Amino acid sequence: MRKFHPLAEKAKSQGKKIHHLNIGQPDLPTPETFYDAVKAFNESTLAYAASPGMPVLLDAIQSYYAKLGVTLDTNDILVTTGGSEALLFTCLSILDPYTEVIIPEPYYPNYTTFVHAAGGVIRALHTSPEEGYHYADRKRIEKLITKNTRAIMITNPGNPTGVVLSKDEMRMIADIAKENDLFLICDEVYREYCYDDQYGIPCMGKFDDIDDNLVIIDSVSKRFSSCGARVGCIITKNKELQQALLKFCQSRLSVATLDQIGAAALYTVDESYYAASKAEYRLRRDTVVEGLRKIPGVLVEKPMGAFYVMARLPVDNTDTFQKWLLEEFDDNGETVMFAPGAPFYETPGSGKNEVRIAYVRQQDELVRAIELLGKGIARYRTEKMGEE
Amino acid sequence: MRKFHPLAEKAKSQGKKIHHLNIGQPDLPTPETFYDAVKAFNESTLAYAASPGMPVLLDAIQSYYAKLGVTLDTNDILVTTGGSEALLFTCLSILDPYTEVIIPEPYYPNYTTFVHAAGGVIRALHTSPEEGYHYADRKRIEKLITKNTRAIMITNPGNPTGVVLSKDEMRMIADIAKENDLFLICDEVYREYCYDDQYGIPCMGKFDDIDDNLVIIDSVSKRFSSCGARVGCIITKNKELQQALLKFCQSRLSVATLDQIGAAALYTVDESYYAASKAEYRLRRDTVVEGLRKIPGVLVEKPMGAFYVMARLPVDNTDTFQKWLLEEFDDNGETVMFAPGAPFYETPGSGKNEVRIAYVRQQDELVRAIELLGKGIARYRTEKMGEE
Repeated sequence: MRKFHPLAEKAKSQGKKIHHLNIGQPDLPTPETFYDAVKAFNESTLAYAASPGMPVLLDAIQSYYAKLGVTLDTNDILVTTGGSEALLFTCLSILDPYTEVIIPEPYYPNYTTFVHAAGGVIRALHTSPEEGYHYADRKRIEKLITKNTRAIMITNPGNPTGVVLSKDEMRMIADIAKENDLFLICDEVYREYCYDDQYGIPCMGKFDDIDDNLVIIDSVSKRFSSCGARVGCIITKNKELQQALLKFCQSRLSVATLDQIGAAALYTVDESYYAASKAEYRLRRDTVVEGLRKIPGVLVEKPMGAFYVMARLPVDNTDTFQKWLLEEFDDNGETVMFAPGAPFYETPGSGKNEVRIAYVRQQDELVRAIELLGKGIARYRTEKMGEE
Repeated sequence: MRKFHPLAEKAKSQGKKIHHLNIGQPDLPTPETFYDAVKAFNESTLAYAASPGMPVLLDAIQSYYAKLGVTLDTNDILVTTGGSEALLFTCLSILDPYTEVIIPEPYYPNYTTFVHAAGGVIRALHTSPEEGYHYADRKRIEKLITKNTRAIMITNPGNPTGVVLSKDEMRMIADIAKENDLFLICDEVYREYCYDDQYGIPCMGKFDDIDDNLVIIDSVSKRFSSCGARVGCIITKNKELQQALLKFCQSRLSVATLDQIGAAALYTVDESYYAASKAEYRLRRDTVVEGLRKIPGVLVEKPMGAFYVMARLPVDNTDTFQKWLLEEFDDNGETVMFAPGAPFYETPGSGKNEVRIAYVRQQDELVRAIELLGKGIARYRTEKMGEE
């Protein structure tokens, strides 16, 4: 995705305004309580924190999960430098060279780096825009299991697709992991953003019979609009895995002290914070999906969670189209960026006419960005694809 | 080292006071400028920073190195979550399964985790207290090189030994790396703490003919007494390695935003800060070494850098001795902790009558702690080793 950065810089330097639908950086304000807690720190030496996490933050996470109905011991939680370190340490602990992880595609591209760092191999469970990217199909998952499979890794709600598993689907995937003695790595950092009441606040930890299989990846980044804090955690009740993970946590000594103190404070926000964030993102989703549906030839299913929409566009190649949008297109001096679909797929050739759109902008900006996308598509089809 | 934690907690709960010589956490105050910069942050959303590091911090690091006489492009610097992440990403980028790294022992035990995470193997260059832990011996290093060797990894000044390489020794090791086409991973986080003027401020980056070999590991933790900030960096001019490292940096998105802002401000302290910190640690080193030399049977060479002393004690096993100090010994209700030597060695059976002592406490505390060590040794030898 980074390859368009120089083109974007060039476009900006020529005075073009770019509407960014490509970046998953939430724009909502970070709760003030974070900054207040950081500013209240008054020790003269900024010392290492405990390797598994500061007690104040472990307690906050424990209470948060208790409200979800998930009972955790403090030992079940390891604080990490963002969900990213949680994923890296999990992969390094679970995978050996040539062992396999089943991941539904399209998926978050950084998973590749974490799996490969451990020498692991991704076995992609292919889904398509035509089927709304739904992956919860027992037969298709089971078909990918081999003697080298160590884990199933999912993002729920999904990035980039916004797909949310139903309770029955969650149960079915938990069963597969249990029956086949696999780890189930569940990245739930978008948990609070589910736009249909049937889902509640999904958490695999609510199943109490998969303690040895389950690894939850969590983070304050999206939940509290605080990506720059780099505070996440790994949750598992598997004692052997806890030991392996702890070794990595000890090797890097600790997570940043002030950010942990700030993160602990974030968990003191009241219910209205979650409700307001979710309501805002839901409105934005509706705006984006309605806008996309008005563009002829776009295939999009309304996503039920996270803050992304994955869509198929009526263009030959979204990579080429993005380049064209930056170099050759403008409408009143403005253009638009999205994340082209191909990097979200493991299977070669997939996703080349798809895009991921992140709706982390104000409503009016989103309206204009989608309008630009529609105008861009129309003009690109005429100029580049020979359409009338 | 962590296994004594429960014993220490128990001793404390029984009212025993423990003098900690075991922890490498500097006690000097973090410069106020760190906190001031953090408190001045006034953006409403705490966003991801750029993956290679924030420009303000990259500029600060670049200027710091320029003063050392090392010219860096911004691209030569990758900001990391402490020196720990710098080491992990370096190992993951350089090593494949079964490739080898030569490391002088005793060494910082977490190196093992980082090397093993990448599937690598440590080939230890053995040194002993009798030879003052000096490892800069061309023949002994060259003898360890095989067709699988990828890197030589050193800590200069050394943790746990405090050994500092002379300029000739640095040049010799640089030559070996160059001649054998090996990476030279140089952990220089204690660079400012060299207690003899002949060393200056050692930095391998001053050699301009090993650009393709050299990787410097750096951190603000020890330099500015700010371990809890978790801000370090990797410095290399090897373009291919830069690309591999950047991939890891991008996969974990960014380093904590506020800590980077604080770290950038740390680099604005004036020369007097460095001089004062160094003078303080030098006095402490002298206190500890003098104290140790008064204890009959202790073998110690005055270390020339960092804030550690490695010594051989006249006891059968420093692990057993430490346990005894916590469980059975006290002098006026006080006892002492050190880091037993064995975990600093790769070679089995080594270091069992050695200890690492960190002198990151006030002078009077150090005096009392070494006195306790002396009394403990005398009593342990009488009670447990059958000495008269």
